[in-house]
Amino acid sequence: MSRIAYFGPRGTFTEQAARRLAPDGALTPAETILAALAAVREGAADAACVPVENSVEGPVTATLDGLAEGPPLVAVAEELLPVHFSVLVRSDLADTAEIRTVASHPHALAQVRQWLAARLPNARHVAASSTAAAAVAVQRGEYDAAVTAPVAAEHYPLRELATEVADVPDARTRFVLLRPPGELPAPTGADRTSLVAAAANRTGALAELLTELAGRGINLTRLDARPTKGNFGEYRFFIDIEGHVAEPRIGDALAALRRRCDVRFLGSHPRADGVPATIQPGAENEAFERATNWVAAVRAGTLA
Amino acid sequence: MSRIAYFGPRGTFTEQAARRLAPDGALTPAETILAALAAVREGAADAACVPVENSVEGPVTATLDGLAEGPPLVAVAEELLPVHFSVLVRSDLADTAEIRTVASHPHALAQVRQWLAARLPNARHVAASSTAAAAVAVQRGEYDAAVTAPVAAEHYPLRELATEVADVPDARTRFVLLRPPGELPAPTGADRTSLVAAAANRTGALAELLTELAGRGINLTRLDARPTKGNFGEYRFFIDIEGHVAEPRIGDALAALRRRCDVRFLGSHPRADGVPATIQPGAENEAFERATNWVAAVRAGTLA
Repeated sequence: MSRIAYFGPRGTFTEQAARRLAPDGALTPAETILAALAAVREGAADAACVPVENSVEGPVTATLDGLAEGPPLVAVAEELLPVHFSVLVRSDLADTAEIRTVASHPHALAQVRQWLAARLPNARHVAASSTAAAAVAVQRGEYDAAVTAPVAAEHYPLRELATEVADVPDARTRFVLLRPPGELPAPTGADRTSLVAAAANRTGALAELLTELAGRGINLTRLDARPTKGNFGEYRFFIDIEGHVAEPRIGDALAALRRRCDVRFLGSHPRADGVPATIQPGAENEAFERATNWVAAVRAGTLA
Repeated sequence: MSRIAYFGPRGTFTEQAARRLAPDGALTPAETILAALAAVREGAADAACVPVENSVEGPVTATLDGLAEGPPLVAVAEELLPVHFSVLVRSDLADTAEIRTVASHPHALAQVRQWLAARLPNARHVAASSTAAAAVAVQRGEYDAAVTAPVAAEHYPLRELATEVADVPDARTRFVLLRPPGELPAPTGADRTSLVAAAANRTGALAELLTELAGRGINLTRLDARPTKGNFGEYRFFIDIEGHVAEPRIGDALAALRRRCDVRFLGSHPRADGVPATIQPGAENEAFERATNWVAAVRAGTLA
């Protein structure tokens, strides 16, 4: 059985993602994202499940920085979870008018502010260190309600006052399952390849990298610039593209980027949304293969 | 006297930035970043002070999204503050061994974790809704210590146990002062221009935009991709470049971007770090002027 470290505590969205990414895994919560990555790097776990980006809150900077430094890890699978919260209350609560305090992580409170204003207008909002910690505090009687991940209802003996609560109905968080470098998942035609590139700090460096991708008809799905060493001024770029490194067009593009700057490969795996890669005419894998064969034939003197 | 709305409460880093950006202003805290922007849009304030990016935590997504939508606002000045915290305790506290709880916003706690582990290893960490709220809670006797912005010491009758506390010594947050469109600050040679571009969702669209900038010798200082409407898949790009829109090279570049996609101007103002723009040979403003004059002369038939 695979040992999976996930960014805990129990009862959070990341646990929910880890269950779906590794249904047969033995799940162990880690206190921080870096601790989950370290568990894999040190061999205490076979894989780690961590969030990468949230469509409302943006990139999860601890994950990005943690992947760019330290021994390499690669994403082998991903999961997209809708950011729908549950509102849990003590099971003996008779009337919602009794709800004076509602606790959660500040990010979660920010994402249900409108709902709370409409449904629990008299409740004071209290910041907790995680959505799960808020559920524990309600269980202890410290607060009246908690805004949590749906999975929290399975861990704590609380009553679900509401489910699928979200001010932005389409908000999503993307999670990845990370392993040490090894055999890659097979290409499916609907894959995502992730990398981090330390482009030179000079005019046009990023434009040149992106033009290498665009010239090969490769679509970006994400680009995040992160200052290195916590300083503005020098950046590294986290780039997700459509396609799998096993494909000729993607391999060719990664080689071109690697010639230009330091590049770390962060994984090729199927997309959770199943969207197939957009491929421009002339940028099909067969076109790359035919072109390579043509150059070989020209070199061999059999064609011109 | 200028009326300045800032992202509050009182005693936070944003208040500190607002004081430096508008030393003679009448400062009023707003409960959220959007509320600070709304105060200017509705005429209740003359300007708003909000954070834009943190070198450790990344972009401040509420500010970016708030500037991309709604009536336009432009940045007219910026301030860079080191992310150094103060640790405040009750004035009657005799011994640091008595400190059992330390409260702050979770982002602040994350940025002083190592310091707390070394100096207050027995204190439990408690999440508060802001650094200033933590100071208030210490004042009320709810917790023993608060991790706060330095300015908080002026608002609350607490004792400074430590100042300039930070695990990452060079961490910085950048703040801007926003006004409705009007007269721009004069160019200084060390300016920053900010814009948001809604690049078409097709292969190469971003590479083309960046190539317009690179081809004019214009250096990027920041690039953040943000999903529109909270959905992955369609993005807008927040781009900061070196230079001032009043310069021919920057005006020429902005016109080129505007031909390609929807662009909103977010301001041109002096950089807080005073770093002068890097200008490539052939991309000086004089080169742009001479080239324009040459085309005019060719058209007039006086030169070829």
